[in-house]
Amino acid sequence: MTFPSKILFFLSLLFFSSIITPCAESTRRRHRRQPHPLDPLTPSELELARAIASDSFPGSPPRNLTFHYVGLDEPDKPLLLSWLSAPSLSPPPPRRALVIARANKRTHELTVDLSARRVDSARVHTGHGFPILTFAELAASSSLARQHPPFLESMRKRGLKAEEIVCGSFTVGWYGQEARKVGRTVKVMCYYLDGTVNLYMRPVEGVTVTVDLDEMRIVGFMDRVRVPVPKADGTDYSGSNERVGPALKRIGVVQPEGPSFTVDGHMIRWANWEFHLSFDVRAGPIISLASIYDAEKQKFRQVMYRGFISELFVPYMDLTEEWYYRTFFDAGEYGFGLCAVQLEPLRDCPENAVFMDAYIAGPDGKPIKMPNVFCVFERYAGDIMWRHTELGIPGKVIREVRPEVNLVVRMVSTVGNYDYIVDWEFKQSGSIKATVGLTGLLEVRGSKYTHNDQIEDEEYGVLLAENTLGSRHDHFLIFHLDLDIDGDSNSFVKSVFRQTPVADHRSPRKSYWSVVSETAKTESDGKINLLSSEQAELLVVNPGKKTNVGNMVGYRLIPGSITGPLLSDDDYAQIRGAFTKYNVWVTPYNKSEKWAGGLYTDRSYGDDTLATWTQRNRAIENKDIVLWYTLGFHHAPYQEDFPLMPTLSSGFELRPANFFESNPVLTVVPPEVVTWPNCSVPSII
Amino acid sequence: MTFPSKILFFLSLLFFSSIITPCAESTRRRHRRQPHPLDPLTPSELELARAIASDSFPGSPPRNLTFHYVGLDEPDKPLLLSWLSAPSLSPPPPRRALVIARANKRTHELTVDLSARRVDSARVHTGHGFPILTFAELAASSSLARQHPPFLESMRKRGLKAEEIVCGSFTVGWYGQEARKVGRTVKVMCYYLDGTVNLYMRPVEGVTVTVDLDEMRIVGFMDRVRVPVPKADGTDYSGSNERVGPALKRIGVVQPEGPSFTVDGHMIRWANWEFHLSFDVRAGPIISLASIYDAEKQKFRQVMYRGFISELFVPYMDLTEEWYYRTFFDAGEYGFGLCAVQLEPLRDCPENAVFMDAYIAGPDGKPIKMPNVFCVFERYAGDIMWRHTELGIPGKVIREVRPEVNLVVRMVSTVGNYDYIVDWEFKQSGSIKATVGLTGLLEVRGSKYTHNDQIEDEEYGVLLAENTLGSRHDHFLIFHLDLDIDGDSNSFVKSVFRQTPVADHRSPRKSYWSVVSETAKTESDGKINLLSSEQAELLVVNPGKKTNVGNMVGYRLIPGSITGPLLSDDDYAQIRGAFTKYNVWVTPYNKSEKWAGGLYTDRSYGDDTLATWTQRNRAIENKDIVLWYTLGFHHAPYQEDFPLMPTLSSGFELRPANFFESNPVLTVVPPEVVTWPNCSVPSII
Repeated sequence: MTFPSKILFFLSLLFFSSIITPCAESTRRRHRRQPHPLDPLTPSELELARAIASDSFPGSPPRNLTFHYVGLDEPDKPLLLSWLSAPSLSPPPPRRALVIARANKRTHELTVDLSARRVDSARVHTGHGFPILTFAELAASSSLARQHPPFLESMRKRGLKAEEIVCGSFTVGWYGQEARKVGRTVKVMCYYLDGTVNLYMRPVEGVTVTVDLDEMRIVGFMDRVRVPVPKADGTDYSGSNERVGPALKRIGVVQPEGPSFTVDGHMIRWANWEFHLSFDVRAGPIISLASIYDAEKQKFRQVMYRGFISELFVPYMDLTEEWYYRTFFDAGEYGFGLCAVQLEPLRDCPENAVFMDAYIAGPDGKPIKMPNVFCVFERYAGDIMWRHTELGIPGKVIREVRPEVNLVVRMVSTVGNYDYIVDWEFKQSGSIKATVGLTGLLEVRGSKYTHNDQIEDEEYGVLLAENTLGSRHDHFLIFHLDLDIDGDSNSFVKSVFRQTPVADHRSPRKSYWSVVSETAKTESDGKINLLSSEQAELLVVNPGKKTNVGNMVGYRLIPGSITGPLLSDDDYAQIRGAFTKYNVWVTPYNKSEKWAGGLYTDRSYGDDTLATWTQRNRAIENKDIVLWYTLGFHHAPYQEDFPLMPTLSSGFELRPANFFESNPVLTVVPPEVVTWPNCSVPSII
Repeated sequence: MTFPSKILFFLSLLFFSSIITPCAESTRRRHRRQPHPLDPLTPSELELARAIASDSFPGSPPRNLTFHYVGLDEPDKPLLLSWLSAPSLSPPPPRRALVIARANKRTHELTVDLSARRVDSARVHTGHGFPILTFAELAASSSLARQHPPFLESMRKRGLKAEEIVCGSFTVGWYGQEARKVGRTVKVMCYYLDGTVNLYMRPVEGVTVTVDLDEMRIVGFMDRVRVPVPKADGTDYSGSNERVGPALKRIGVVQPEGPSFTVDGHMIRWANWEFHLSFDVRAGPIISLASIYDAEKQKFRQVMYRGFISELFVPYMDLTEEWYYRTFFDAGEYGFGLCAVQLEPLRDCPENAVFMDAYIAGPDGKPIKMPNVFCVFERYAGDIMWRHTELGIPGKVIREVRPEVNLVVRMVSTVGNYDYIVDWEFKQSGSIKATVGLTGLLEVRGSKYTHNDQIEDEEYGVLLAENTLGSRHDHFLIFHLDLDIDGDSNSFVKSVFRQTPVADHRSPRKSYWSVVSETAKTESDGKINLLSSEQAELLVVNPGKKTNVGNMVGYRLIPGSITGPLLSDDDYAQIRGAFTKYNVWVTPYNKSEKWAGGLYTDRSYGDDTLATWTQRNRAIENKDIVLWYTLGFHHAPYQEDFPLMPTLSSGFELRPANFFESNPVLTVVPPEVVTWPNCSVPSII
């Protein structure tokens, strides 16, 4: 949400940018292999997209041209599926880029055909909302404050040293203003270091600097109120910090023969799974074409065409002047992928992890390498995949146990203060799990209070330490899950568990429950509020495919969190974040409907969202459908979250439901046991 | 639920019994150390309890004396807490046993003082319900069928070979019969092997043998209907079964210096935790005296006095004659601990696990060893305890990550067909998690149907394979969680997240959410149905202890499943399993209120349950309170559950909530990294 972090990160990206040589890279890659149609743009393709897009402006490229999004414009799904069905018979679909750029205060949206080296379409976005902010803008706007004499005077009056101040830029949302009044502005809020690295625990409250991003100048300054800056003591979390307590003894995961998965470009193959892993500036990881090998049918069967985090909505519940506007969209405003951080081996991911890099376009359109943005590893957590002990057969003792080993794809996105750990986990049993862990630093508000007894009014948070209020907020992540269960004609089924009375004395029982399956006909049937729904299971089935005994093949969604919004429907932030209204939505596949909060989210009016698309109430039965799941957290902080939060996780599971004829892991061979008979005493790195 | 398994298991226990020498064991143990007051009974104590209880009957012990429960009669809580506060000043509370025995068709309940070697109290249970069934009874009743000529004739008519038949005994519940009509009966149902070890997939439907347990004779026989026995093909899960697909490469967990925890008798100490682990025939694992070291306060602080699974209720939803009565109580009828199985190293638990044994009393009261009933291990799953990347400070890049290592205590209870994997997990951050994994074998009903299209009526299940209906059922597990948050005077607080309108234009916002905390005064306030509740957090707090800034210290319950019953309130099974009515209950501590389905569960009338106790609506504010959490699963089987179910897990977390002044793992030292530089190629066991 806040972005002082990006000032330096931006610089470091420029550094990375300068050390890679896109053309050489491009040559190497081209010799190596043809990109898969869903691969993210290569450095050379990013460079090409930049060049073509820049040249498309009449005359020379505008001097103030900035690139806000450059990514793969993925092929139309029918085209891609058709090609994939016989890839040797025809060339792959053309590689195309979607470029969103700003120039002369206008948003330009271009699709670039990289094969034909031409712009396929170009339009100026005239609706509401603006694209993802660039690092350059965030860095520049943040740095303006410290060059602003009134700001420096405000700091001086507070007794704060200017050199210990760091600032971040905050998106400001929309609160019903007239169209003409909404510009590309951010508010700059500042923090104080002076004895800690944990700047987020030391907000300088009361001072707001408003910056117009297009003109990159200060358009507002307010010093409203003076509040103590919380102290630095006890806030530092860095490695140099004094340690308390003994460390645990060493523990590690070993795979003497290496991992069981292969990475071929962006295709990952492991056990009975194969899928494509891509990176997107906005979404972060994108899992595509996830298919599972059916040993009985002796073929791979489709499960998920595409799964990714479509949006994150993080509204704060603090109405004070410096806080009310904090209703962030971490994907649409900041780029959830753009905020991905370099993963640290042996800490962020275990010993057996394999790391992958990504490439993005910088604000100038030039390719930048993001190293170690993903890790992939086999997760061996001591869990049991299945077991049974059978002592009922005379003369036999049967104890069959299969330990569980799963495959995890991890990315961490640090959106300013918050760190989101995103895990996509694949199980041999056919399940796909997604887990999101929340850690990092709270946004706290400076306050005069040092003890709860002093507080009489609503302060919108909990006193976590002296002068430190932990503000209440939500995290809503919505997953776009384009399931193609054994093909792309699918239906959404709600299997309601319904109490059934036994009235006719046909049984000593008075009741039981039965299952009533309701197939959603239109989008309104697919909107599920699990907080008020009957107890039910939610499935995506293929009505055209049945098992041998006649069950429709399907997958079911097991939600890990059932959280609903607590803002009123007519609140502006809620209109923009209306995808939180239901835990589950179902839409017909539409290539343009990717971003649940709208393509242009910054300062949007909420007129291009999942909630508006579904008002058409389109047919979704036996269609190519997309399942959307909203994973929510209401976060009322506790003192344990200060000065840094222990990870809190939730997620969901997609589990096969009559997809297979029988348990697909019945005959899985357990891995051989690892022993280390010939080792000297292990050393410590 | 079904018990052919126990026939052999019973024999194997007798075998174990014969190889241990209780007296020698007893001498060794006594030399070693004094038992902790909460330790389970030692073999010598079991022997002593048997001897004292047997001798307490006038004249010689009754010939038909059988022991149904022998376990620790734990000291009164105030007495124990008082002794624990200064253990060197006084002798520990006396060791006492609770003995429940049957003789001459009566249930005898005795408390035996093992130190004074006398019976402290003895009474005959005159209310409804009977104690846990013994293995001997289950074995004997199951074997009666095969000696019953009409039964053998029924098998012959079905073309089944008698030597391939195995039978199990099922508890039958209560369906409103008059008191005089309810005896200790079970129904014996049989299965067919003949080509598989998976007997549960081959039920012989239509034939019911009713056995009176006290007289151990058949009191009813019915051959009602003939239904095909499902085929053996595809049902075998044993190791000799043909394997498909490549195995994963080897993976293992290593701890070169061994585990970081210590086991001292039944006290386990790891990282900042210490707790007592006991075993009970009925509950399985009991976690007691769980305390966490507070580095800031430099002392251990109490969290949980006692936590265990109080009952499991597993009602089936099939009204047919052979099925309607299947509404099992796995703890109260069968003994969840009694059904614990021997854990298999490297399969049930990872390489770094430590195993523990337990001792129980056999039906004759003599001690029996249950080897490897628990394993304890450090769980290193590649998760992240906390992290943050900070790029916002000029000249610095901060990336701090702490991998998560937790401690797990595991037991597996195989109640006939089902395998329950119970994990208690302790986190350095202060959380206690409990997870229950369900695997093993379904109860399926034989059926004439081979395809869904043939089915027109309600068949109470899903066709999983030809002639095989997977019956719908529930699993409700209720946890008794006697939290003592920093002392034993606690309150239960519901922190409701409530939408708050902003009406006075004091903010551009129209709404936000605030927290309204409601402290439960009486038991009725503590009954929480999460399916219909407002969004809220549920906490146990110590109103007498506050943090420095004035927050009440507490722990919160994070439920992992929100499931409610689907039987009608007046259904007999639901009256007996009424603890499922609420997800959360809170009671004042009462030593006698341990078993949510009643102490005498078999054939109970539901007049001694959590639901009846709480009708008194006792005060629970600022008292020693017990939190009860009901973990529910509605299980509508899918074909993937056939012929053996992949594990499905759920659970809950108890997480500190203003218990600590700040994040207790901020200064945790990450474990050193393990490398293996001096190894030759590892070998395969």
